[in-house]
Amino acid sequence: MAEKISFEAPRGMRDFYPEDMVWRNKVFDAFRAAGEAAGFEPYDSCVVESYELLARKAGEEVGEQIYHFFDKSERHIALRAEMTPTLARMVAQRQAELKFPLKWTTIAQCFRYERMTKGRKREHYQWNVDIIGEDSILAEVEVIGAACDALRRMGLDSKDFKVHVSSRKFLGELLEKSGIAAEKHAQVFLALDKRGKMPDTEIAVMLKDGGLNDAEVAATFAIMDTKSYEECPELKELFRLAEIAGFADCLMFDISVIRGLSYYTGIVFECFDTAGEFRAIFGGGRYDNLLTTIGGQPTSAVGLGFGDVVVTELLKSRLGTDAAKVKKGVAVGFMFPEQRDAALKLAATLRKAGEKVNLSLKSQKPKKFFGAADSSGASSAVFLGPDDVEKGVAKLKNMETREEVEIKL
Amino acid sequence: MAEKISFEAPRGMRDFYPEDMVWRNKVFDAFRAAGEAAGFEPYDSCVVESYELLARKAGEEVGEQIYHFFDKSERHIALRAEMTPTLARMVAQRQAELKFPLKWTTIAQCFRYERMTKGRKREHYQWNVDIIGEDSILAEVEVIGAACDALRRMGLDSKDFKVHVSSRKFLGELLEKSGIAAEKHAQVFLALDKRGKMPDTEIAVMLKDGGLNDAEVAATFAIMDTKSYEECPELKELFRLAEIAGFADCLMFDISVIRGLSYYTGIVFECFDTAGEFRAIFGGGRYDNLLTTIGGQPTSAVGLGFGDVVVTELLKSRLGTDAAKVKKGVAVGFMFPEQRDAALKLAATLRKAGEKVNLSLKSQKPKKFFGAADSSGASSAVFLGPDDVEKGVAKLKNMETREEVEIKL
Repeated sequence: MAEKISFEAPRGMRDFYPEDMVWRNKVFDAFRAAGEAAGFEPYDSCVVESYELLARKAGEEVGEQIYHFFDKSERHIALRAEMTPTLARMVAQRQAELKFPLKWTTIAQCFRYERMTKGRKREHYQWNVDIIGEDSILAEVEVIGAACDALRRMGLDSKDFKVHVSSRKFLGELLEKSGIAAEKHAQVFLALDKRGKMPDTEIAVMLKDGGLNDAEVAATFAIMDTKSYEECPELKELFRLAEIAGFADCLMFDISVIRGLSYYTGIVFECFDTAGEFRAIFGGGRYDNLLTTIGGQPTSAVGLGFGDVVVTELLKSRLGTDAAKVKKGVAVGFMFPEQRDAALKLAATLRKAGEKVNLSLKSQKPKKFFGAADSSGASSAVFLGPDDVEKGVAKLKNMETREEVEIKL
Repeated sequence: MAEKISFEAPRGMRDFYPEDMVWRNKVFDAFRAAGEAAGFEPYDSCVVESYELLARKAGEEVGEQIYHFFDKSERHIALRAEMTPTLARMVAQRQAELKFPLKWTTIAQCFRYERMTKGRKREHYQWNVDIIGEDSILAEVEVIGAACDALRRMGLDSKDFKVHVSSRKFLGELLEKSGIAAEKHAQVFLALDKRGKMPDTEIAVMLKDGGLNDAEVAATFAIMDTKSYEECPELKELFRLAEIAGFADCLMFDISVIRGLSYYTGIVFECFDTAGEFRAIFGGGRYDNLLTTIGGQPTSAVGLGFGDVVVTELLKSRLGTDAAKVKKGVAVGFMFPEQRDAALKLAATLRKAGEKVNLSLKSQKPKKFFGAADSSGASSAVFLGPDDVEKGVAKLKNMETREEVEIKL
């Protein structure tokens, strides 16, 4: 026997055993179904990107966290940390031919080299939903609506989660009214984004470092208490349209939503569980400089990123750890090798009829077969003994009700 | 505007625009459906693996072709070139707890740094189907049957493809009967695997280098003309069971199927298009040393790898490049901004009823709307003008028959 090596996945990377895949598929299926229902077209690209592209878009911090290396021709390549730079590249590549607005969606694996804290992994999957080339607020409505639909398809409702919505533009107007000049806003956004993660005294220091005087710092904190969006026509329209589209119950105004990245220009949003137990479920907003940063033509866009990790934790907590298991399919087994042909034939017939069939590969005692069928999650089971094959009739047992019906072989 | 950078994907990597995703989804959906119908459980792992694991399993050549690098803690990591080492690692990790036989499946992206020749990419997706811990030939039947089912679900039948089947054991027996000792077989397999890729004269040189004399070389070539599997009980049983399972028409005996990798120990198979136009569609076989090479307990396994590239080329060639497009969903549009609310409400209602709805985001002229609806692949379309909204009734147009039915708003 060869020398034993580690059987663990590399640090920060995940293995998905079948019981984990049941959850992943529940989440991914909801992503796909919600995207399709809302008319988004799937796209994808390779997880390996050019380092130059990723570094251009990323801030300093993310640049440090990129997994990057050189291929054998000394090309500098990297594993993407998010899908947006790739999306920008693909749109820019065909900007002259594509018909805008684009409504695109993908589920992208993304890598980030982070210090390993509890539960933090170095890779995750992120559902991306983007509308590119549409200025109207209907783009925000469609993107946020699709995300709420995905959560509903997973089994959650507006009692479990809320999409916190704000507007960078609105916040900017409020700051300007308080006499804080536009050129200081980027620094203010950066500081306010840290709220909740560090004490307000430290936020105040950051604001002062950004050139605000004491009165301006006080005014900034006062703005953070804004409870009404009545003076923001854009937000008013968003809430009105969400009412028509049927997901206004999932939204709430929250001036404190900033979004770390500097490229957002309008509506911003972040979704949280109502109990405040987990990190953000998804987040996004309007960003207008997507293509110009890499040398494409200007275009407006709205997008969101929705990771698989937090929502899976939330689902397990709210629905129970067994909630993703669905009993389905037929288990087919046989008592002696002499019934194997008949079992194979039955499996083929049932599969042709559209059934999922798990065929036992060797002869078994009935007790062992039914025990395995039960734990495998089959919804029904057929076990062939010598008598069944002789008579040409077998019993199909419903694994939940234990009822049996006769089927012809 | 920022300096323009390359909008191309890194060399050898693929972008999937929506029209490419239609094909990819057709292929992946067939993989998933065939795996599920045959009772295989999905699993997955991260594309980043430890270099040590990949190098252990891979032959010299593959080792050279691995994309590998060091993370920031100097861990030697790599992008997997195939799924099998990861499968072995995951099974070994839980070998004491897992219930065998395992029937596992995954669609794994794999990377290989190759010299770029026409159509060769450096990444592809490979559907893996494996049964681990089952000695009986029924494992081969289930694995090959699932692959044939996937091809049928894609729209091909046994006129389009054939699975060429042989047995390493049978070939070994034939060689031994000709007096070629077992210790020379590995070298003979290696040489014969090159047949068709290099002239027989060079194969003969390889055989002589492997220690065969002229008579043995001649005997080896004579064995390659074997047309009957009657003397191989294992192959006879495989064909008999395939007949019962309903896919014998997809199989043919072909003594020349060797499979390059040295780890196969029994039945081996490779699927080709009947016209002989493309490279192998899928390939696999029985391998018994999967876990022992990395230090796990011995176990027998049957598996296959089925790439996405060749089959997509074949499908486009046989079914036509438009064959993956399916008209579906409802396009909803509106003439003036005043009808936008009604259009959004209609879209929400249709989506709640389970429809895929592509809602136009801005007002349009009817001609433009219906043109876009047509090219977007919608199966029906509703266009709201002032009269429709006033009357509360609109026309749902079937995009193929051009028939219209009235719907209430």
